[in-house]
Amino acid sequence: MGDSLEHLFSPRSVCVIGASRDPEAWGHVLLRNLLNGGFRGRIYAVNPRANEVLGIPCHRSVFELPEEIDLAVIALPSGLVYDAVVECGEKGAKYAIVVSAGFGESGRSDLERKVVQAARARGMRIIGPNCMGIYSSHSDLVSTFTSLVPPRGEISFVSQSGAVGTTVLAWAKEHGVGFSKFVSIGNESDLSIPELLEYFETDDSTKVIALYLESVKDGRRLVSSLSSCTLKKPVVAMKVGVTSAGAAAASSHTGAIAVEDKIIDGVFRQYSVIRARDPAELFRISFAFSSLPIPSGRSAAVVTTGGGWGIECADALEMKGISLPPLPREVFEVADATLPGFWSKRNPIDMVASPDPFNYSRILEAVLKSPEFDMAFLLGFGTIGSIAMPSLIRSEIEAAKSISEIVRATNKPLFVVDMLGPSQSAASRALIKAGIPVFPSSLSAAEAASAMVRYREFRRRKSSRT
Amino acid sequence: MGDSLEHLFSPRSVCVIGASRDPEAWGHVLLRNLLNGGFRGRIYAVNPRANEVLGIPCHRSVFELPEEIDLAVIALPSGLVYDAVVECGEKGAKYAIVVSAGFGESGRSDLERKVVQAARARGMRIIGPNCMGIYSSHSDLVSTFTSLVPPRGEISFVSQSGAVGTTVLAWAKEHGVGFSKFVSIGNESDLSIPELLEYFETDDSTKVIALYLESVKDGRRLVSSLSSCTLKKPVVAMKVGVTSAGAAAASSHTGAIAVEDKIIDGVFRQYSVIRARDPAELFRISFAFSSLPIPSGRSAAVVTTGGGWGIECADALEMKGISLPPLPREVFEVADATLPGFWSKRNPIDMVASPDPFNYSRILEAVLKSPEFDMAFLLGFGTIGSIAMPSLIRSEIEAAKSISEIVRATNKPLFVVDMLGPSQSAASRALIKAGIPVFPSSLSAAEAASAMVRYREFRRRKSSRT
Repeated sequence: MGDSLEHLFSPRSVCVIGASRDPEAWGHVLLRNLLNGGFRGRIYAVNPRANEVLGIPCHRSVFELPEEIDLAVIALPSGLVYDAVVECGEKGAKYAIVVSAGFGESGRSDLERKVVQAARARGMRIIGPNCMGIYSSHSDLVSTFTSLVPPRGEISFVSQSGAVGTTVLAWAKEHGVGFSKFVSIGNESDLSIPELLEYFETDDSTKVIALYLESVKDGRRLVSSLSSCTLKKPVVAMKVGVTSAGAAAASSHTGAIAVEDKIIDGVFRQYSVIRARDPAELFRISFAFSSLPIPSGRSAAVVTTGGGWGIECADALEMKGISLPPLPREVFEVADATLPGFWSKRNPIDMVASPDPFNYSRILEAVLKSPEFDMAFLLGFGTIGSIAMPSLIRSEIEAAKSISEIVRATNKPLFVVDMLGPSQSAASRALIKAGIPVFPSSLSAAEAASAMVRYREFRRRKSSRT
Repeated sequence: MGDSLEHLFSPRSVCVIGASRDPEAWGHVLLRNLLNGGFRGRIYAVNPRANEVLGIPCHRSVFELPEEIDLAVIALPSGLVYDAVVECGEKGAKYAIVVSAGFGESGRSDLERKVVQAARARGMRIIGPNCMGIYSSHSDLVSTFTSLVPPRGEISFVSQSGAVGTTVLAWAKEHGVGFSKFVSIGNESDLSIPELLEYFETDDSTKVIALYLESVKDGRRLVSSLSSCTLKKPVVAMKVGVTSAGAAAASSHTGAIAVEDKIIDGVFRQYSVIRARDPAELFRISFAFSSLPIPSGRSAAVVTTGGGWGIECADALEMKGISLPPLPREVFEVADATLPGFWSKRNPIDMVASPDPFNYSRILEAVLKSPEFDMAFLLGFGTIGSIAMPSLIRSEIEAAKSISEIVRATNKPLFVVDMLGPSQSAASRALIKAGIPVFPSSLSAAEAASAMVRYREFRRRKSSRT
């Protein structure tokens, strides 16, 4: 099954069925995003009542298309979906994304089953219905409701909520988080999360897998694919419908019965699936896995502009099981030679608002080269320039480059915290551009580091057993 | 003591001692921020080696100033601070902000005591040393290291960390959070947090008090002022130095001994001080208290663009003790008449990506007018315009205005969640401008709502006992 998904994520041709001239119709938005996304394959549109939409000539039916298509995107009222699926299948389409709602989630499970049977009988697979499409960065395929898609990267993401999924893409674009593939799976009537996991497990452009789950359709198969997948790649998951109120809301949404949360939690623990509590955490942790080396142990140094930040970070690290050993002599000496006399003289290294941004790279180099430390945390870098001394911004950006080189050279992870957020500081933006994630708080950075440490320990335990 | 602080927050004249021509010196940044902030009183500068800085003529010493000053800002190396304080005191200054470090926090408690004694003997009070200044929005007094200050509002904020405090101001500006007064208290050598609490308790332009604490100097007096203050105004506090690593870092930072965290936690619970876990949470909760009515009970309706958001929010609310009762008939009927047939038919009200933004205001009006609900949560409003259909943005902004009018008219709080963040969506920016806070996640909104509910219950218990 796995390799056949290549035609889903890298189709040679895509057709939007229900392409609309009305800019407020989903059939318009989907075609526009596909065009604006820069997809390099062939794009077709079907609409029996229009000659063209957005410059694309409209065919009256799928049968009139000049060639077979790999991927059909169906944006029609639910009552018209069955016929469209039959036609796409007969025309040889390999996949159909059914955006339309009005199936299992609103009591029409019969119609949903009929659509899937029609597709399968014709060798076609269905994504959805009741979904928001897919995004495949490496083929510039933007077949989802948002045109605000993130850059290429190595996170592959499956979401049971279209709204959350598409918003996350827009959010990730703003934060510079790179994605490989995104699938809004909707009612998961045919193509399933376990199948996608099996594909991502061997997909070279996927380094980490992110999941947003409301309910579980086939628990046994999900567990089986997680158990195999997590041995090769980290899986980060958010599961909603945890409380009775949430579970009730979930059952009315996708029509599925929510699984007891404790079972999910147990499975996640057993296979070291990292559980995130909200979408932002899901992507911060995924971003860390996709762009930083995994720490080899639990020992950290903290480098900070201000004492308050250092305390907050020390709290967060201790709470997450990461230790702050004393500074070894060689690090102490570099810091003492670099900083004003009233620096903290200990770990956290409080740089007492020392304005020269290259002081950070000097100290980080000593820290990351020291065998005492498995990772470093950097707090407040770039803040002096962005909130107090704009004349420093240029050299902060230069120092950011040198910091990212140190991270690469030492192959140890650096967790950067900028509570202004990456969009506020030029230095943070430069770090993100160089592939170093920036966290909005010490706690969120400590959570990501701790998830990475625990995942490495899980892999070690597993490999020592075999 | 209380009313005398008027001259601190609304001084008639301010003098920067150690004004510098070097744009990378703190004595330059402070004068520049004061000038750019639009302070309406008189501004002086002292620097014996310069004729003028940033267009302000420099005096050789405080004694040469043409009048007495209310507030002196001292940005000199620590060795020169004692003499400057003596001179300011003799010239009649009422307050001196001592920015300079190199006192108690680096083993020079003797020098710190000497400075305070010199000031007190001359009727002057000290803020700091080792602090980052103050901001007083109502008198446009920007006497801190960041020029990026938030708009006027009713949050007053005291921080023991200058770095966190000044960054928070910059962050709050971006998020549209209004502040009344900010004090970076540094080593708290003289003017203390309890004195500030006593002042804010009766200050008309302070509606909520925010604290960022690393250590406690005079526990008895802090408890006594909290016990009085919380009966009148909500106090939201973040306390760092919780773990042993954090406490060790704190003791090297301000030179104070960290108090056992459990004692702090007990005091906070007893007086219903709302404890925040990070600076962003501190200000989200403070913003909610400053701009929304406090809910009268624990019952909420959720209105959402997408089902996934509704489930996440239902989870978050149940976890925080807020209930989602079924929809009363009058609300059901409005929703059913407004929305596509496949809407959720229950609470959360899933609007199934219904694009017309005025549908939100119609449904919110029904929800907030219903006696069944004490508050409402709004998720995904503005998202369709900002990520999929730009043609909707204009009417989303119009609908935002109508939503804020409904909130005002019904006097019930609305918690808006925009996971893109307020800077991403024009609709969210319009809501913030109209005084409605926007939260980045359901969990953070639920935390703020729950803090407000618990505070109201605390006040009720207290008033029923007297």
